[in-house]
Amino acid sequence: MARIQTTPVKGTRDYLPRDLVRRNRVFQLLRETFERHGYEPLETPAIEHTSALEGKYGAEGERLLFRILKLGRDLETAERAIEANPEGDRSAASLARSLSEMALRYDLTVPFARVIAAHQNEIVMPFRRYQMQPVWRADRPQRGRFREFYQCDVDCVGSRSLTVDAEMIAIYVEVYRRLGFTDFTMQINHRGVLDGLLEACGVAPEQRGGALIAIDKLDKVGLDGVRAELTQDGLPATAVDRLMEAIGLSGAPQALLEALGPLIGQTQQGALGLRELAEIFDYLPAMNVPAEHYAFTLAMARGLAYYTGSIYETKVAGVEVGSVGSGGRYDHLIGMFLGRELPAVGASFGVDRILVALDELGLSAGEEVTTTQALVTLFAESVPATFALAQSLRAAGLRTEVYAEPKELRAQLAFAKDKGIPLAFILGPDELARGEVTLRDMRSREQLAVPLAESPQRALALLGLVS
Amino acid sequence: MARIQTTPVKGTRDYLPRDLVRRNRVFQLLRETFERHGYEPLETPAIEHTSALEGKYGAEGERLLFRILKLGRDLETAERAIEANPEGDRSAASLARSLSEMALRYDLTVPFARVIAAHQNEIVMPFRRYQMQPVWRADRPQRGRFREFYQCDVDCVGSRSLTVDAEMIAIYVEVYRRLGFTDFTMQINHRGVLDGLLEACGVAPEQRGGALIAIDKLDKVGLDGVRAELTQDGLPATAVDRLMEAIGLSGAPQALLEALGPLIGQTQQGALGLRELAEIFDYLPAMNVPAEHYAFTLAMARGLAYYTGSIYETKVAGVEVGSVGSGGRYDHLIGMFLGRELPAVGASFGVDRILVALDELGLSAGEEVTTTQALVTLFAESVPATFALAQSLRAAGLRTEVYAEPKELRAQLAFAKDKGIPLAFILGPDELARGEVTLRDMRSREQLAVPLAESPQRALALLGLVS
Repeated sequence: MARIQTTPVKGTRDYLPRDLVRRNRVFQLLRETFERHGYEPLETPAIEHTSALEGKYGAEGERLLFRILKLGRDLETAERAIEANPEGDRSAASLARSLSEMALRYDLTVPFARVIAAHQNEIVMPFRRYQMQPVWRADRPQRGRFREFYQCDVDCVGSRSLTVDAEMIAIYVEVYRRLGFTDFTMQINHRGVLDGLLEACGVAPEQRGGALIAIDKLDKVGLDGVRAELTQDGLPATAVDRLMEAIGLSGAPQALLEALGPLIGQTQQGALGLRELAEIFDYLPAMNVPAEHYAFTLAMARGLAYYTGSIYETKVAGVEVGSVGSGGRYDHLIGMFLGRELPAVGASFGVDRILVALDELGLSAGEEVTTTQALVTLFAESVPATFALAQSLRAAGLRTEVYAEPKELRAQLAFAKDKGIPLAFILGPDELARGEVTLRDMRSREQLAVPLAESPQRALALLGLVS
Repeated sequence: MARIQTTPVKGTRDYLPRDLVRRNRVFQLLRETFERHGYEPLETPAIEHTSALEGKYGAEGERLLFRILKLGRDLETAERAIEANPEGDRSAASLARSLSEMALRYDLTVPFARVIAAHQNEIVMPFRRYQMQPVWRADRPQRGRFREFYQCDVDCVGSRSLTVDAEMIAIYVEVYRRLGFTDFTMQINHRGVLDGLLEACGVAPEQRGGALIAIDKLDKVGLDGVRAELTQDGLPATAVDRLMEAIGLSGAPQALLEALGPLIGQTQQGALGLRELAEIFDYLPAMNVPAEHYAFTLAMARGLAYYTGSIYETKVAGVEVGSVGSGGRYDHLIGMFLGRELPAVGASFGVDRILVALDELGLSAGEEVTTTQALVTLFAESVPATFALAQSLRAAGLRTEVYAEPKELRAQLAFAKDKGIPLAFILGPDELARGEVTLRDMRSREQLAVPLAESPQRALALLGLVS
C-alpha cells in the first residue's frame, strides 16, 4: 500500500483557524463593501460542463483545466466503446478527453456568463453581483502560484452607463481604505484612448500590440527604457517621439485629458475614450472618492484582448506584490452564451496579494488569531456555575469556550495562551465561594477579581467593545 | 461543435441571489452559534490525494469519488508509459485510475482527520472546529440528492469529557431554536446502552445488526411493526419480549435510565452507557437546555459502525424531511492518519433539509430575497445629489443601489419591485429643488416626501432597524 500523504495536494492549502480568521476578515470587508453598493451574492458549482469552458481560455488555459472523471458508469461506457472499436484512437490524451465531460471552475467570469444565459428570465438587468469562490488551475505550483485559490469578482452587467465605471472605482478605493492602506493609487485608463494614441502617433496596426507592452513597462524601466524598447521594436522615430511626448505628460486627470485632446482627439476611438474618461472623472468627486487615490495613467495598458472601455489597476506603495486589484469595462464577453452583446464593468480583487501587502506593511499586526474571545476554566467543584458564567458571557455576545476537562489551572491557561484567546475566566471553588471570578487578560497577564455578575461588562470593556 | 449547455451540471446548482440570501442566513446563524461556543473555522482544499480518500468510504463510496485528471504533464507521462509497454493493461478503468492521483472531497471528516495529522504540532488540543464546505459525490442525481452539496460539521477532538457531549446537544438545540423551530426533539441514545441492551436480552452477536435496524424503525412502524420484524428475523421469543419491553418504556431521561438499570446495567457496555448518559443529562439543565427539546430514545440507533458513545438525531414535527442534524461521539475515526486513537464528538447539520423544513413550516415567509435594502433612482438632472444621498444612506449602514441609468421612473421602480428591494428613494429635479426626496415603501406601496437630511433615519425606521 502506498504511503498515505497527510499534507494537502501541492498548490492547495489547509486553512487553519488563524489563517482563516485573517482571510475571512478581508472577505467580510469585501462582502460588506460590495453589498453596501447594492451588489448581490452569486455562487456557481465547482463543476462545469467541459463544453462550457472549452474555447474560452486559449490553448494554454485549456491545458490547465482540471478534468473530472466519474469512475462508475462513464468508464464502463468508455471501455465498451473501446472494445467495439479497437482500431480507434486509444491515446491516453484522447481517452481522457472523451471521458471527462466535466471540469473544475477555472475562473468566475465564464460561469457568470453561463448563469446569465441559463437564468435570463429570472435575472433583472442591470445586474450587480459579486462572487467569491475558489478556482482551480492545473499549473505547476510555485511561490505565490496556487492550484486552488479564491477569486473575488464584482461586476455590473446590462448597462453602458459610465456611472457604473465610476462606481467601480469608488468601490476599489473604499475597499483599500477600509483595509487600512493609506498610500495607494488606482491607475485609470481607457482602451479607446490607447487605440487613439497609437493611431494618432502613426504606429502601424501590426506594431501596436508590441508598443503597448513596451509602454506598460514605464513603471519599471522609466521613460528612457520605454523609448529604447519602442525604437528596438522598429517603430518610426516620429512615432516614438510622439508616443514619448504623450506618456511623459503628467497632471490632474481632467487637465491631462485636455492636454491629450489635440493629439488623440482627432481619432474616433481616442475622442470617445477621452470623452468617457472625462465623464467618469467628473463623477468621482460627487462619489466622494479622494483625488489622491486615483490617477489617469496613459501608460497603463492591462490585458487588452478583453477590455473595451475604461481599465483600472491598483498598486500599493512600499510593497512588491504587483497589482492588488484590476478591472475595467468589457462589453463583448458576458454575452458569449447569450449570443448577443451585453455591456459589463467588473473589478477583481487579489486576496492573496492583499494579505501579503497587509503583512509587509505591518497592517495586520495585533490582529486576532482566533474567533474565540474568552476561555472559561473548568473545575470539577464548580461545573454548573462554570456553565452559567459561559452562558452569561455568550448572551453578552462574547464568543466563549469552556475548557473541556477539569485539569490543573496551569494547563488551562497554557491552552488559552497557545490559541491566542485574549481573556480567561478562572472560576475555582474559592472564587465561587466569594461570588467572584478571576479575570485574566492573557495579553497583559494582568488579572483581577471581578463579581460574577459583572463578568460580561468587564470582558467587553477589556476587549474595547464598550467604553 | 457540440451544443454548449448553459444549465449547470446535473446534480449541481447555481445559487442566484435570492437562493443565496436564504442559504447564507442559515450559514450565518450556524457560524455564529458555533463560534459563540468557542468553535473555530477550518477549511480544507476541494482536491485531496486519492490515497488519502481510498479505503475510507467503503466500495460504494469509492465508486462515488470524482477523480481528477491534469491534462498537461500527467497525460504525456501516461502516454509515454503506454508506448513503452504496449502489452500492459490499457483498459480505460485502469488507465483512468492510474492517471488520477487526486479526487474531490467526499466529506469533511476524512480531510479533518488528515489536517489533524498534518498539523499536529500547530493544533492545540482539545480542538473545537467547525467546517462548512461543499462536498462532491458522483451519484445519480435525483430529487433531494445532489452531486455537489454543503456539509456543516462541528466537532471537538481530543477530549473524553462528557461536558463536550452535552455541549454538542446544547448547540443543536440553540441552532434549531434560533432558526425559529419550536416543535422539535433531539433524540439521544448511547452505543454502549444499545450494545448492553442486545446482550442483556440474549440477542446473538450475529443477529444484533439486524435487530438494531428493526428497532430503529419504531418511529415509522410502531411497536407491533418492530415486534413483527424482530420475530421474522428469527430472534428467540424471550429476546423479542425483553427488547419490546425495554423500548416500550417511556419517561423523563433520568427516570428512564433508572428503569433500564436492572436490565442493561448488568452488562459492562450497558452500565458504562447508562452512567455516561446520566452524566450528560445531568449537565443539560445547567447549560439551560429546555427539557422539552430532548429525549432519551432507546430505539434510535444511527450508523453504529462509526459511533462509540453518545448519539443524537433531530426531527422537526410536522415535516417529512427526516433528520435535520445528527452526530455523536466517535473515538476511533479522527486518529486514522495519526495512527493513534483520538476521542471526538461531532454534529452535522443538514442545510438543504433545514431549508425545506423552514419553507414547509412557513418560517421563511416574509424573508428578504436580496441583500439590497434601498434603491436610489437616477435622473440626469440630479446626478451629484443622487450620489450624495446614496452615500448618506450607506454611511448609516443601509445597503444601497443607485439605478445604473437615467431612465423613466416607472422602469426604475419596476426594477426595485422585481428584485424585491424594500425601499426606493426617488430624487428627481422637483424633489431636489425642495430639498426633499420621495421615499417609497415598495412593500406597502406607500410613499411620502422626506427632507433629504432625514432620509437615513426614515429608512432605518421603515426597515425596523431603529425604533
